[in-house]
Amino acid sequence: MLGLNERTSELDRAHVFHSWSAQGALKPLVIAGGLGCRVWDHEGHQYLDFSSQLVNVNIGHQHPSVVKAIVEQANLLATIAPSTANLARGEAALRIVNRAPDGFNKVFFTNGGADANENAIRMARLHTGRDKVLSTYRSYHGNTGAAIVATGDWRRVPNEYARGHVHFFGPYLYRSEFWATTPEQESERALQHLERVIQSEGSTSIAAVLLESVPGTAGVMLPPPGYLAGVRGLCDRYGILLILDEVMCGFGRTGRWFAFEGYDVTPDLITFAKGVNSGYVPTGGVIISDAIAAGFDTAVFPGGLTYSGHPLAMASIVAALDAMEEEGIVENAARIGRSVLAPGLAALAANHPIIGEVRGEGVFWVLELVTDPLTREPVSAAVMARIKTELLARGLLPFLMENRIHVVPPCVVTDAEVAEALAIYDEVLSLDLLA
Amino acid sequence: MLGLNERTSELDRAHVFHSWSAQGALKPLVIAGGLGCRVWDHEGHQYLDFSSQLVNVNIGHQHPSVVKAIVEQANLLATIAPSTANLARGEAALRIVNRAPDGFNKVFFTNGGADANENAIRMARLHTGRDKVLSTYRSYHGNTGAAIVATGDWRRVPNEYARGHVHFFGPYLYRSEFWATTPEQESERALQHLERVIQSEGSTSIAAVLLESVPGTAGVMLPPPGYLAGVRGLCDRYGILLILDEVMCGFGRTGRWFAFEGYDVTPDLITFAKGVNSGYVPTGGVIISDAIAAGFDTAVFPGGLTYSGHPLAMASIVAALDAMEEEGIVENAARIGRSVLAPGLAALAANHPIIGEVRGEGVFWVLELVTDPLTREPVSAAVMARIKTELLARGLLPFLMENRIHVVPPCVVTDAEVAEALAIYDEVLSLDLLA
Ligand SMILES: Cc1ncc(COP(=O)(O)O)c(C=O)c1O
Ligand SMILES: Cc1ncc(COP(=O)(O)O)c(C=O)c1O
Repeated sequence: MLGLNERTSELDRAHVFHSWSAQGALKPLVIAGGLGCRVWDHEGHQYLDFSSQLVNVNIGHQHPSVVKAIVEQANLLATIAPSTANLARGEAALRIVNRAPDGFNKVFFTNGGADANENAIRMARLHTGRDKVLSTYRSYHGNTGAAIVATGDWRRVPNEYARGHVHFFGPYLYRSEFWATTPEQESERALQHLERVIQSEGSTSIAAVLLESVPGTAGVMLPPPGYLAGVRGLCDRYGILLILDEVMCGFGRTGRWFAFEGYDVTPDLITFAKGVNSGYVPTGGVIISDAIAAGFDTAVFPGGLTYSGHPLAMASIVAALDAMEEEGIVENAARIGRSVLAPGLAALAANHPIIGEVRGEGVFWVLELVTDPLTREPVSAAVMARIKTELLARGLLPFLMENRIHVVPPCVVTDAEVAEALAIYDEVLSLDLLA
Repeated sequence: MLGLNERTSELDRAHVFHSWSAQGALKPLVIAGGLGCRVWDHEGHQYLDFSSQLVNVNIGHQHPSVVKAIVEQANLLATIAPSTANLARGEAALRIVNRAPDGFNKVFFTNGGADANENAIRMARLHTGRDKVLSTYRSYHGNTGAAIVATGDWRRVPNEYARGHVHFFGPYLYRSEFWATTPEQESERALQHLERVIQSEGSTSIAAVLLESVPGTAGVMLPPPGYLAGVRGLCDRYGILLILDEVMCGFGRTGRWFAFEGYDVTPDLITFAKGVNSGYVPTGGVIISDAIAAGFDTAVFPGGLTYSGHPLAMASIVAALDAMEEEGIVENAARIGRSVLAPGLAALAANHPIIGEVRGEGVFWVLELVTDPLTREPVSAAVMARIKTELLARGLLPFLMENRIHVVPPCVVTDAEVAEALAIYDEVLSLDLLA
């Protein structure tokens, strides 16, 4: 008789095909349950979740009021077509537009982040009558046809079957594409570069600029002063729509409801997923500004999906957003960022020259690991694999990308849990990793 | 104080953006609950659901064991990253491959049907090193970038931003594109047409032919004798992969687990969604043949999504497929089709010359409405709107597309419920609709 961990691994290896990987050598970690910032397998091994899974479990695992809402809705009505009117759906949309800036009153619901971006792109193209969508090389926007080609990172390249997508460089001072040395210079030069791309592509061919308000998977690059407001200015000048992708950075991650609220900018379309219900039920969507929504009062919107506004997802959004408000979860993320993670990670960096830069806010941080602080050469994949093994062995479930440790716990993380994680990072980074 | 129906409508009109429509004139029907083949609003108005919503509620509304499985999994672990191994996910994959033909052992899970097709297309392109995907004009494959351009119907046209998609005509004897007069001739000529398209596009540029085993939204066109086997033969001759889209027709709809089992054909990739868990939680996926899966043991698969293999969805698949087996739900769909719907709809057609053709099997039928049986001219949108109003007024929730009534109840529908629906269709079709 197999133990449940073994049974899980065996079924997984035999029948489950995993994302973004060669399947042959995978050994996925078994996870059976969780609570708050902890998850565990079937044999009682526990992990402190400093990944929030795919940076989505903002409210922590198994928040009782979200679970309760799912259970209640499941008992009432699990599924209903998007063409109907459903109370949970209306209540979810109301909560979302209440968080959005003035002038955003409608929500189109999707199943996740990719199709949120797909539909935002669709709206932008139809609203403007233009084709091209500009996005940055360091970005991730999802795995479907348009979203993956809007994506800038390597995952785009084997998938480039859509037209009308153009990529440019965003600001990233630590590895500047613009020979800049200060945040102000990086911002100014990045804007000049974007304007030159707009002009060179032909401004009247461009429907939208699509940006993560804070690029997440690419390395939590907080926009430098004036950048997002500058992009807004360029969009206005050239009649281009601004889509801000808040899939990863929205709903508490930065210590604000929306990341862009920290950057003096209002987009035309906002895409969301993950944090809106912490991924307890697959969902996402587009928050639509009134000007764009109005066009579709008379014009048919040619997009849709079977599970748009799915009742279980909607009930979980209502409960998650209410709990986040009542329990001050976004405020907790801000406080942890400011008072605990900022000083804690700075101290870590001071002790470990392998940390080339610390960036972030809220519960959205990154440690950029380098072989040499001067050359800033990224550590190798082998070093990162070793770090992963060592962190897991000490009971910390990490989020690693390229040469970076993303420090991205749930927004409900406590001071004590951060202290525990910092001690584990400290211990692992003290190993002779570059030998 | 508003009643709940009014509150629902008000929130819906203020904040919910709906699929495939101009928003201005929408008046979505309020639905609050359901059981089996019935749904109702907050004020006790009941409807007999002969739409299965978007042809997805195969197991009926609120099946107790599926609801129970969702509740149990929600209490255990609502969400976990796709990179982990999870028991519910392995068990769901096992049940799905057990239903698939020999030589299909891996499942890639998605959030719905569109991204199932996106990922099947991705696999086909990477496996073959070829670009083009052939699909039919009368097809629907989803709303995301590649899926919507693979789609053949009007919804493709405002969304054509992907390259490498080519469309051809499929068999549809009632409105033959090939001047055919018998099913055999339609099949033969449709195959000749497809071969000429393959040759004319350049066979070595074609990665896949993507077909709904039985085109659903386009009008439940059962493939004529030899057609699907003939497509398989063409694919083999030219080194092209065959993707069968079983999103709507799979998991019981035709009275078989997979629709293609009735047509002497085995595809290379199978896409599914809807019926696999009746849409109780958003999910879908690709069932991958061993030859294609093997390539990705060493090559990285460049696709993925946050909610791939979502635990709530997985638990609902396990429960739904087990209940369908234990309760003989697929057999019920077959029996209802053969013994109740086939004769019942034939009798209806005999009485109402507005019915130009009846087609279907299982619980997957269509009445094609025409102004004249000889010219076969489709009835107008105004006639269809009137039919919708009259059916709803008599407590039947219909599925209407273009000039067709799709008769698509849950697979659990009873003889008595079919009799009730047939009486309502009869009454409405007896009205002076063409006046
Ligand atoms: C910024 C951003 N946009 C979009 C997505 C895609 O979301 P999903 O995986 O739900 O399709 C992600 C996922 O990580 C993301 O981080
Ligand atoms: C045959 C077929 N494929 C794909 C889809 C798309 O599925 P989804 O709406 O879940 O994206 C549908 C939806 O109706 C369908 O009928």
